[in-house]
Amino acid sequence: MAKRKALNVALIGQGFMGRTHSNAWSQVRKFFTPKLEPVMHTVFGQPEEKPRTFARRWGWQNTSTDWKALVKSDEIDLVDVVTPNFMHAPVAIAALEAGKNVSCEKPIAHTLEQAREMAELAKKKRAKTFVWYNYRRCPAVALAHQLVKAGKIGTIRHVRGYYLQDWADPSVPLIWRFDKKKAGSGSLGDLAAHVVDMTRFITGNEITRIDGAVLDTFVKERTLMEGVAAGGIAAGQKGASGKGKVTVDDAALFLCHFAGGAVGNFEATRFATGRQNQNGCEINGEKGSIRFDFERMNELEYYDATAERSVQGWTTIMCTHGGAHPYADAWWPDAHILGYEHSFTNQASDIINVLAGKKPVVPLPDFNDAYQTQRILEAVVLSAKNRCPVKLSQVR
Amino acid sequence: MAKRKALNVALIGQGFMGRTHSNAWSQVRKFFTPKLEPVMHTVFGQPEEKPRTFARRWGWQNTSTDWKALVKSDEIDLVDVVTPNFMHAPVAIAALEAGKNVSCEKPIAHTLEQAREMAELAKKKRAKTFVWYNYRRCPAVALAHQLVKAGKIGTIRHVRGYYLQDWADPSVPLIWRFDKKKAGSGSLGDLAAHVVDMTRFITGNEITRIDGAVLDTFVKERTLMEGVAAGGIAAGQKGASGKGKVTVDDAALFLCHFAGGAVGNFEATRFATGRQNQNGCEINGEKGSIRFDFERMNELEYYDATAERSVQGWTTIMCTHGGAHPYADAWWPDAHILGYEHSFTNQASDIINVLAGKKPVVPLPDFNDAYQTQRILEAVVLSAKNRCPVKLSQVR
Amino acid sequence: MAKRKALNVALIGQGFMGRTHSNAWSQVRKFFTPKLEPVMHTVFGQPEEKPRTFARRWGWQNTSTDWKALVKSDEIDLVDVVTPNFMHAPVAIAALEAGKNVSCEKPIAHTLEQAREMAELAKKKRAKTFVWYNYRRCPAVALAHQLVKAGKIGTIRHVRGYYLQDWADPSVPLIWRFDKKKAGSGSLGDLAAHVVDMTRFITGNEITRIDGAVLDTFVKERTLMEGVAAGGIAAGQKGASGKGKVTVDDAALFLCHFAGGAVGNFEATRFATGRQNQNGCEINGEKGSIRFDFERMNELEYYDATAERSVQGWTTIMCTHGGAHPYADAWWPDAHILGYEHSFTNQASDIINVLAGKKPVVPLPDFNDAYQTQRILEAVVLSAKNRCPVKLSQVR
Amino acid sequence: MAKRKALNVALIGQGFMGRTHSNAWSQVRKFFTPKLEPVMHTVFGQPEEKPRTFARRWGWQNTSTDWKALVKSDEIDLVDVVTPNFMHAPVAIAALEAGKNVSCEKPIAHTLEQAREMAELAKKKRAKTFVWYNYRRCPAVALAHQLVKAGKIGTIRHVRGYYLQDWADPSVPLIWRFDKKKAGSGSLGDLAAHVVDMTRFITGNEITRIDGAVLDTFVKERTLMEGVAAGGIAAGQKGASGKGKVTVDDAALFLCHFAGGAVGNFEATRFATGRQNQNGCEINGEKGSIRFDFERMNELEYYDATAERSVQGWTTIMCTHGGAHPYADAWWPDAHILGYEHSFTNQASDIINVLAGKKPVVPLPDFNDAYQTQRILEAVVLSAKNRCPVKLSQVR
Repeated sequence: MAKRKALNVALIGQGFMGRTHSNAWSQVRKFFTPKLEPVMHTVFGQPEEKPRTFARRWGWQNTSTDWKALVKSDEIDLVDVVTPNFMHAPVAIAALEAGKNVSCEKPIAHTLEQAREMAELAKKKRAKTFVWYNYRRCPAVALAHQLVKAGKIGTIRHVRGYYLQDWADPSVPLIWRFDKKKAGSGSLGDLAAHVVDMTRFITGNEITRIDGAVLDTFVKERTLMEGVAAGGIAAGQKGASGKGKVTVDDAALFLCHFAGGAVGNFEATRFATGRQNQNGCEINGEKGSIRFDFERMNELEYYDATAERSVQGWTTIMCTHGGAHPYADAWWPDAHILGYEHSFTNQASDIINVLAGKKPVVPLPDFNDAYQTQRILEAVVLSAKNRCPVKLSQVR
Repeated sequence: MAKRKALNVALIGQGFMGRTHSNAWSQVRKFFTPKLEPVMHTVFGQPEEKPRTFARRWGWQNTSTDWKALVKSDEIDLVDVVTPNFMHAPVAIAALEAGKNVSCEKPIAHTLEQAREMAELAKKKRAKTFVWYNYRRCPAVALAHQLVKAGKIGTIRHVRGYYLQDWADPSVPLIWRFDKKKAGSGSLGDLAAHVVDMTRFITGNEITRIDGAVLDTFVKERTLMEGVAAGGIAAGQKGASGKGKVTVDDAALFLCHFAGGAVGNFEATRFATGRQNQNGCEINGEKGSIRFDFERMNELEYYDATAERSVQGWTTIMCTHGGAHPYADAWWPDAHILGYEHSFTNQASDIINVLAGKKPVVPLPDFNDAYQTQRILEAVVLSAKNRCPVKLSQVR
Repeated sequence: MAKRKALNVALIGQGFMGRTHSNAWSQVRKFFTPKLEPVMHTVFGQPEEKPRTFARRWGWQNTSTDWKALVKSDEIDLVDVVTPNFMHAPVAIAALEAGKNVSCEKPIAHTLEQAREMAELAKKKRAKTFVWYNYRRCPAVALAHQLVKAGKIGTIRHVRGYYLQDWADPSVPLIWRFDKKKAGSGSLGDLAAHVVDMTRFITGNEITRIDGAVLDTFVKERTLMEGVAAGGIAAGQKGASGKGKVTVDDAALFLCHFAGGAVGNFEATRFATGRQNQNGCEINGEKGSIRFDFERMNELEYYDATAERSVQGWTTIMCTHGGAHPYADAWWPDAHILGYEHSFTNQASDIINVLAGKKPVVPLPDFNDAYQTQRILEAVVLSAKNRCPVKLSQVR
Repeated sequence: MAKRKALNVALIGQGFMGRTHSNAWSQVRKFFTPKLEPVMHTVFGQPEEKPRTFARRWGWQNTSTDWKALVKSDEIDLVDVVTPNFMHAPVAIAALEAGKNVSCEKPIAHTLEQAREMAELAKKKRAKTFVWYNYRRCPAVALAHQLVKAGKIGTIRHVRGYYLQDWADPSVPLIWRFDKKKAGSGSLGDLAAHVVDMTRFITGNEITRIDGAVLDTFVKERTLMEGVAAGGIAAGQKGASGKGKVTVDDAALFLCHFAGGAVGNFEATRFATGRQNQNGCEINGEKGSIRFDFERMNELEYYDATAERSVQGWTTIMCTHGGAHPYADAWWPDAHILGYEHSFTNQASDIINVLAGKKPVVPLPDFNDAYQTQRILEAVVLSAKNRCPVKLSQVR
């Protein structure tokens, strides 16, 4: 076997997403046979000890405390951005300016303007960009995309998207996720973004109008805290000094229309007691329907309305069969199920595929694609604020 | 056993609902021991042969072709209205004027004005009125009401209501259900009405504002037909002469707020391929959640967020245990499950209870209660039409 | 419509099964259009007041305290036997001797000898006989039979049958069901009988050998009681005077082979905490599999191993579609689900069909068929007792 | 942080299990913080190129073609055996003789005699031994063990164990898994072994008698093939020259009793169409029940029969909550589910715990424990062969 060309990756950040990406870069070469050899070259962090500890655990070869220098380094081929949200744009833009390919966590930017700037710069620089809407690469979601594309469900009438969590009861203190300056938004950017991307991906249809929207904050004040680490839900810690204001949404709901005439119904919340990570959707077409729920991520539900009537019903497909289901060949035998982090490893494989000039298993979102999702979220904000429908064509 | 006093019932109408009510009046005396003896006294219909055939099958003792005379008859104690929707108000009003107690199918009226008139007249006449929102009397729904009332789920944050069917593909001709003059509305009055009533009943909370709404008609024209019997879906029949316009909604969606601060998300449609009668809801509170889906009507799902954390989860309660679950004593042993029509029989039992001066197992909706539901549907229509939020206080 | 010929039914007994049969004879003429008009002619019971009360509630026209006279009466066409098990044989034999057609609850007899006698007498008299293995007439079970017959699952490899209940904890007193003299056996005749019949029916295959069996009694003594009515589980009543011995099995398990080479695995118990009426089976064939669980009786699960691999999975069929599913035309629209007692009404309809010279929707078990099931249960008893395999050919 | 002491691991073998173990040794140091630093020191294989390729992919530092030398090497602390089954005993015995600690794949030996020898030698050498019954370390299975141990389900009445797969249709050629010389047995050792271990682990009870057993081979001959690699299901390859005899069981079923009086019902098969990896069990106790199915490995079903009756039901526990569920702290937030290989990583963590003198999260099986499981499998073989019950006390 000839030695493959290296792909040197720099990771900017080390939070929750730093773990998932490090794991993906490490695992991809074990389970896939990528055309380029991914090298975990350097991880950035501050102060100095932090990236060192992180690098030791995850296998990064070098560390850096200077991201501006790092993203310009000749040794780096791909800059992978997993900073807190408000730093996505500065880092990604600097990397693009330096001529790098960039992969970035979602949502790609704090403001729509930044997102547009990132998309335009990527186009101008002819850079290859990638956004970690990782749920596209759950095999069941990828299969849903393939089935819809193959015409299995026909003209789409209904799109129901939901991302329901339940961790934000009033006892949780004022962590960064409740602070608009750091997080940008609450359930909208954190959760709804994923399911908007997922349904755009599966349907191949664009949302053209937000018909109505609600952004609610149920718990308006929370206990202040000091020294909570970014990126974590520090549920056990208690604030010392009184209360502070929550500046983001706890729940986001909206109704919308898609280009093909389908009506959409979306909901994201941190207050759906008992739904801990229910990221999913149901899509009803004239010839069939599909349904996905991340809490059973290995399964896709499919209703084939063209089947013999006596045996029509919802079929639970275990999406683990090599040769039949996306990404299944890389992993284990039938029904030896996959977990959350596999979606990232699958994405790492597809990113390498694209960088090596090959096609991904299913389409990868780039900065422009993620910008389209941001436009939708912005339209939701406008609709909720102005209490009226908003056409997507008016949001740029 | 002393002979019980008779309750003479007149049934006005004989369609699909005529069957469910006739069955209920017949079965209630077999499975329950009601305080009054329900007598299936007279059924109305035209022409003469129709009620005769119907009476023979279902056990009505007499027939009538003159409803105006029938509702005034001294022999009748309760007038039960199962006509097409547009006749509900005239019949019910005449019966109330004649001093009768009245039970009426939902939605109680074609217009909000009529509904208000019915509610006011009932109050003025001190009549006992009942509306057949039968799903309240599925044991699982009644249990949900009891659990919420007992404080098991705490402050409610989210109400998700849905009534999804899938029978209206483009091949279905222009039956009465697609005609606004006969049906009043489409999925809104037919389906959403049920789930609005169900969630009002379970939560004990009122909707105070519609935040946004969509009423869509996917199939705008359908094949004309002649001679289709009212009340049935004559899917097999073909229209002879061209197309006619569909004048009702195929799908209705809205976002709303409840008095207690919860946000609501409702959807009703005839185009949810694979969902044939999914009438249900999920309600998330701070201390727990409940979920119901009529397609598994014997089951209630309950999440107890106050339980020991290691064993928290969604509990599927089989609501058939005598002594523990509503109505279960009347029927069969554990897990010998009930079906659709049992909800009507349970309601007949509760109607008799109320007429005998006893309490129903769970609250029964009267005309005023159903008028409140009609106000909500009207607000949805206004919100969809004017593309803006509508406060319920503005709709009368 | 010409007047139909009457079918005069005599009901012998009034316990739990008396209720289900009375309901069936009453409902069948409302939901079906049988070729003969079933007349609820006479119900037998002792003392005199009992059948009178029963007849008033259920609509029987006459009562009798002399079953021997009743089964000979010229006015009776069909004798329907719902007595305690030990009386099945004497009543059925007397009715056959009198030239009547007979329908009998399961298990048809207390001893295998009696069952054989009943089957032989029925044959000799050319009587039409029927046994109320009602679960065959759950639409999902009937559909399973049809699918297997149509070759949808191919050569059968595995048959798993189970009937799991959980009501017999040690606090339950020594009711008749624990007494071998009255009940014949415990979980074996009460529960396993049903699932043996069900799997014979669905597979169209006969069990040829019991490979091993266990009959266990977990609670060997129970509180004595006096005056417990036959046929009911009087869980609340307390015994006065000490303990008595349980003389039947609490649990029955066996392994077996079918004529076609499939291996079978059966289990019946009253101690499966949380399984309240889980009567069901899973059958694996080379081309597909089916699975049924009575607790969700409207659903059949079907795996089609000949489908395109990417969409293979377990399909949950809601067996309520008129024109496609057995018995569905008689009842309600799609997914307006049926309950336990509907299986009896469906059977009443099929009994009338056969008596009118027509075919039932799916095969009805007669005395000979039920005798075959009894032979299997007897072989299980022998295998458990002698701790060895038993060939069915040796049991008569 | 002080440098931790190294734990040098030698891996003997590189098949399917070689991959799962390599992944575990690699991942454990990323997600856990083990007390010893696991070093992937050397992998053995032949010919030379094979372990080299394997080592490059998985990160082993050295390779060896001489396992006899390797297991004696001073540099090795733990010998991890993943060879084909027939080599387990020779390698493990050599390693024990050399004074090493040994972890071995299941089943530990080809014959009961070898297993006993291994267990006795381990005891004599005071070695720490471990067997990779990895399913114990699915968080849901570990939780089941904890709940039963805490008395949550009370006295156990029924144990149902099943391991159902469906890959062995007649088109699959005569791979090593169908050859008794290489595999030892078929579904019995491959599948039933796992579920026997799992139920012993969860119940804390020993099987004392096999009451009856069936070992069946449905497909008696299969296409011969040459050059099929050990350890893989080479479904795509075609045999060149005729048929060969299948010498193992396709399906294994048995009934048994446990020490505490519970009755057991076990089934393992490769012919359960639609069940691809359904390794699970249901255990019914007087106070509750639990149920596990690997195809939904993150979920445990629990029925609490001591709960308030109106809310009793089966609770689906998502076993991913840090602080509440075994191993959950090491991984991701709630409901970010785990997959198959995580059970191995969890086991690697516990092996290191034990070698560092700490307690594992839940008990690890050692050679003696695995020998007890082998005794049960041997008793099943004897019971099936001799067609009679077999007491475990008679099998050594």
